[in-house]
Amino acid sequence: MDLQKLLRPRSMVILGASEKYGLGSDTCRNAQAFCRDLSRVYYVHPKYDTVFGRKCYPDIASVPDSIDLLVICTNQRTVIPAMEQAAAKGCGAAVVYASGYSEMRTPEGLRLEEELAQAAQRLDMAVMGPNCGGYVNLTDGICSFAFAAPMGGKAGGIGFFSQSGQLCINMLNCPELRFSLAVSGGNCRIVQPEDYLEYMVEDEDTRVIAMYLEGVKDPARFTDCLRRAAEKRKPVVVLKMGRSPKGRATAASHTGSLAGSDGVFDALCRKYGVIRVEDMQDLRSTAGLLATLRRLPAGTGFASVSLSGGETGICADSGYLAGLEYPDFTPRTVAALREILPPYAGFANPLDMTSMPSYDRDLLARALATVMEDENVDMGFIGWTIREDSTGDFAQNMMLGIRQAYEKVPSKPLAVMSFMEFSRNRELLEGFQDAGIPVLPSTRYAMAALKHLADFVAYRPEDHALASAVPRPGLGQGKRRILSEYDSRRLLRDFGVELDTGAAAATRREAEEYAAGIAGPLAMKIISEDVPHKTDAGGVRLNVRGPKEAGAAFDDILKTVRARCPQARLEGILIQRMLPPGREFILGIQNDPQFGPMVLVGLGGVLVEVLRDAVLYPAPLKEEEARAMLESLRSAALFRGVRGGNPLDVDAFCRLIVQVGEFAVAHKDTLLELDMNPVFVYEAGQGIAVADALVVLEE
Amino acid sequence: MDLQKLLRPRSMVILGASEKYGLGSDTCRNAQAFCRDLSRVYYVHPKYDTVFGRKCYPDIASVPDSIDLLVICTNQRTVIPAMEQAAAKGCGAAVVYASGYSEMRTPEGLRLEEELAQAAQRLDMAVMGPNCGGYVNLTDGICSFAFAAPMGGKAGGIGFFSQSGQLCINMLNCPELRFSLAVSGGNCRIVQPEDYLEYMVEDEDTRVIAMYLEGVKDPARFTDCLRRAAEKRKPVVVLKMGRSPKGRATAASHTGSLAGSDGVFDALCRKYGVIRVEDMQDLRSTAGLLATLRRLPAGTGFASVSLSGGETGICADSGYLAGLEYPDFTPRTVAALREILPPYAGFANPLDMTSMPSYDRDLLARALATVMEDENVDMGFIGWTIREDSTGDFAQNMMLGIRQAYEKVPSKPLAVMSFMEFSRNRELLEGFQDAGIPVLPSTRYAMAALKHLADFVAYRPEDHALASAVPRPGLGQGKRRILSEYDSRRLLRDFGVELDTGAAAATRREAEEYAAGIAGPLAMKIISEDVPHKTDAGGVRLNVRGPKEAGAAFDDILKTVRARCPQARLEGILIQRMLPPGREFILGIQNDPQFGPMVLVGLGGVLVEVLRDAVLYPAPLKEEEARAMLESLRSAALFRGVRGGNPLDVDAFCRLIVQVGEFAVAHKDTLLELDMNPVFVYEAGQGIAVADALVVLEE
Repeated sequence: MDLQKLLRPRSMVILGASEKYGLGSDTCRNAQAFCRDLSRVYYVHPKYDTVFGRKCYPDIASVPDSIDLLVICTNQRTVIPAMEQAAAKGCGAAVVYASGYSEMRTPEGLRLEEELAQAAQRLDMAVMGPNCGGYVNLTDGICSFAFAAPMGGKAGGIGFFSQSGQLCINMLNCPELRFSLAVSGGNCRIVQPEDYLEYMVEDEDTRVIAMYLEGVKDPARFTDCLRRAAEKRKPVVVLKMGRSPKGRATAASHTGSLAGSDGVFDALCRKYGVIRVEDMQDLRSTAGLLATLRRLPAGTGFASVSLSGGETGICADSGYLAGLEYPDFTPRTVAALREILPPYAGFANPLDMTSMPSYDRDLLARALATVMEDENVDMGFIGWTIREDSTGDFAQNMMLGIRQAYEKVPSKPLAVMSFMEFSRNRELLEGFQDAGIPVLPSTRYAMAALKHLADFVAYRPEDHALASAVPRPGLGQGKRRILSEYDSRRLLRDFGVELDTGAAAATRREAEEYAAGIAGPLAMKIISEDVPHKTDAGGVRLNVRGPKEAGAAFDDILKTVRARCPQARLEGILIQRMLPPGREFILGIQNDPQFGPMVLVGLGGVLVEVLRDAVLYPAPLKEEEARAMLESLRSAALFRGVRGGNPLDVDAFCRLIVQVGEFAVAHKDTLLELDMNPVFVYEAGQGIAVADALVVLEE
Repeated sequence: MDLQKLLRPRSMVILGASEKYGLGSDTCRNAQAFCRDLSRVYYVHPKYDTVFGRKCYPDIASVPDSIDLLVICTNQRTVIPAMEQAAAKGCGAAVVYASGYSEMRTPEGLRLEEELAQAAQRLDMAVMGPNCGGYVNLTDGICSFAFAAPMGGKAGGIGFFSQSGQLCINMLNCPELRFSLAVSGGNCRIVQPEDYLEYMVEDEDTRVIAMYLEGVKDPARFTDCLRRAAEKRKPVVVLKMGRSPKGRATAASHTGSLAGSDGVFDALCRKYGVIRVEDMQDLRSTAGLLATLRRLPAGTGFASVSLSGGETGICADSGYLAGLEYPDFTPRTVAALREILPPYAGFANPLDMTSMPSYDRDLLARALATVMEDENVDMGFIGWTIREDSTGDFAQNMMLGIRQAYEKVPSKPLAVMSFMEFSRNRELLEGFQDAGIPVLPSTRYAMAALKHLADFVAYRPEDHALASAVPRPGLGQGKRRILSEYDSRRLLRDFGVELDTGAAAATRREAEEYAAGIAGPLAMKIISEDVPHKTDAGGVRLNVRGPKEAGAAFDDILKTVRARCPQARLEGILIQRMLPPGREFILGIQNDPQFGPMVLVGLGGVLVEVLRDAVLYPAPLKEEEARAMLESLRSAALFRGVRGGNPLDVDAFCRLIVQVGEFAVAHKDTLLELDMNPVFVYEAGQGIAVADALVVLEE
């Protein structure tokens, strides 16, 4: 959807302009305070001649200009008539603050929203809302925002979209954040979250995208936007509800969003390098960090520097818990630090400088610069809690010393981290911010933001298959058809998945013939879509040796299964060579109705249900991605060999995972599930074998 | 050690009193600002007649009073002479700010600290420090503190001890914290962390103990203090370095503390119900929460209430990730809320009240009180981000409505939680604080503090064996002696651990005789302290049947082992019945040189090294504690039965764990390790069996 008239209108009408407390008043006030050019901003109210000293027109028709954007501050009943009047003057977009729509969770509310959507389509208008707070485009100086919020001097690189008005206001209140655009999108019935995302991905002034999402409405466009952002290396930071069962319930009810499966969303984030955060402060500090940095670190090696042993220990522990890497300093760095710092400093990373440098700006700058110059260090941060009363010589020393070090090693980012929440000295914060030095919040949030940054830096789009396989609408609502193991194997094999199908014997003679052609012991299993639990039905014989035993087993299996499952249609007997035992894993596909096939890999064997050591990832995928899946298992050490054993054939397993992903993508509109349980993975060079396979299709 | 003269002196001398920038000046300023009674506080400096308008004496001898406490603001060389002069006037305690001791990590520093310790002992003085920041006793209005910090109006229930001066100053700067005592203890060479802990445990004015610890110096006293605190239900909140390898290295080098094993310290905290926090903000918010509450919640069911759907979702997810319980509201509560709130509210826990109550104080109070009255709710918190500009009617409404609800349901605690860090409106903070309503910091820290509170509430001292088994000094430095399996089993059995010893056959005839007495197949294993790896040496035969086979196996084992291990002294052959296979676990003891025997329980079998699913806990322990250990395993579901199997015999396993713990306590001064690997745990009622056992003693 084209959002030019909505987010970059040349002219704008505020309907319901007023000086009286309410949305109309705040919108006018915001417009007057933050619109760069008011010449084509028009107020409309039937009762007033002027509002806040500006001319007010009695109705839309009286406005002496064409209209790009209509901002409707009036109530729900007035919305569609107003849109119709504005459309007559060329209006292509509207902001609808009014509530009373789907968020009411009533049939009436749903009906009104449907009517609004139809009107928008009929009038060809891009409508923000309903039940929204509006937006501010700080790049172009355009403001249609329903609530009081500080937006002056806040133009910058963060594009922020929120489905919640409250969260949008709180973000706008963060003194250190600078925005290109901030949208409180409300119900997003017409213009959807994906439209705003697309706008921010393409917008050159938006360097960091931050989103608060309750759900995804258009999965194919959503993933396509993520692909473009990944290719541009533009960070996307997402706070999405639904990590918990209660959070999913909240999201599903609030603004009627489809919350979707959380594990699937998590997997998508990993594929597209999206930074998923856990709460508002995490969103704020991560977006703020990314936007304040003038350059990204070249790698993921952090140096931590503090002024006391206690703080150094906290940085060591908290960084470790967050997953930060603190590389050792080179001997050269340590030697240089020993020249500079007192002997009772702690000459390691994290570094305890002692408090001495806090009294000596040059000493501080030299010590910090020495650390930053270390070849193992990609980014540094200094732990120093800034308080309201951080003033005077000491504080100035600290700020200037840190800035001096940063200017001396301008190729590597440097940040300041606080250990506790305090009201903080505004002058210091701005002094750092203006120099491009982010001030991070209390330890845990700071460490989380740095870890998000490290993950973003480590992500390489070229290692990922950035394609989606969104299935047809309605998948999963039809009838399930469970293929027999033989048909499952054939379907997979015909597509190109490398696995043995075995042979299907329809008669005892065929069974004897096939058995004669296979060296070693055999496994024989009933073929029937009506017998999913083959062993329980007496449909399996293992370790059958030679044609004669195979023939006898053929008759025996048929007889037993017929007795136990008299209704089942039996198609024959599957004959395979017995597989040597290997390390057991599971490999499967779950086809998500929103985002399509998800590959599942996990530890198999008797403890599979107890340990639940499995990982999900969207198909299609590259071998690098399959390898990363295996590495992310808790039991990943198995692949490297245990108890002096050899490593496993990870290459062969990855090939199978990739092939299964391709199979799933090709069958995305019919495949419901695929289960390979177990897959035997043998030692390196010995390959893998699929011991059982089951495909479930939708008819 | 008696700390009365140190922490509650009747008279005090400040040596080095001065108006010139430095420790002496700040100490005098602090004394004048915060000492309740200055009449027996004396300044000493050879050059001044007055300091800050008060009389100054030329030397200690001139002070016209007996002296309880000497505060030494002068440098290291002056310390011992000053102590000697003061001792002549009855002085029993000193605060030594001077540095230049063990924190220098030089032989000279260590020597000086040793001299100081000897002087303190000789003069019978309780010395705080050296290299310390002093303390403030806010209960009694006594202050000997070397740095500027706001301490006015801060008397309250938190006793805080810190080994780091920087962290102590930051805690004192937290506007919401109220202290009984705050100590920056420095190197703690003479008065140790355990002395301060003991003081705070016994001090009636200290309701919450908060500590920043680098290490424990006196394990037996430390655990004894923890026991007393647990029995008194006085919360102990500890920030201890050493969660990470780098953190342990930092702690070990900084102030020369013995950091100890982090897993052991964690286990101790679980046993004694100590709240272990991760960083300064976590320490601060947890201690602040505990101290502000006028009553503890009766249980661990939280109600979360917010003003928007987005914030409600964040509370749901963040609470879930932190491990909070959000019980469902009763139907009665939901019905009552439906009467009060608009229809588009979210009537669940977490509750989305919508923003409507924020404009209507009574509505807010009624909705909140309805939630608090729910029988499933033990404590509530409302998500509302307080900012500097949270002023005016809206903010007053919120504060008064929340206070009104709290006054209506005074039996249950209520808190306010912020979603982001901001400078916060001081008036609001105080308005809540004064009413006994804690204001929690940004989400993640708030959730962590609430979880700590829940854990403290759920802890029952009567379920824990609150005894320590600290071993003799020097354990682990002697020679290791690995007992044979037979001797290991006999030692355990003789103590009372219920396990089969099997029979030791010295001759073929004995082997035949013993075999005749055991029904079913046998296992036969070589007995020799020189053959720890019995299987590798050919020293094991399984599934031996009957006396005849047993006799042949006897000769065969001896022959094979003699050939492979010609130097080994062979003591005979152990004959046991073959054990039926069961679910495999490991059970062991690691004797920690500081804290004594730690019981280790974990998942056994082939994946043990890969999954590392094990838990550590201090001996002795009760059956409840053994059960909690098993429940804390990732694979705990095994005990309840998997794949339709029966539950396992947890009772029998717990008995064995308890017995092994008792064995370890009895042998705490000689036992190094015990390994039972595997222990077979059978189905409920079928008991357990120890398949192998190995004891390592120190000679």
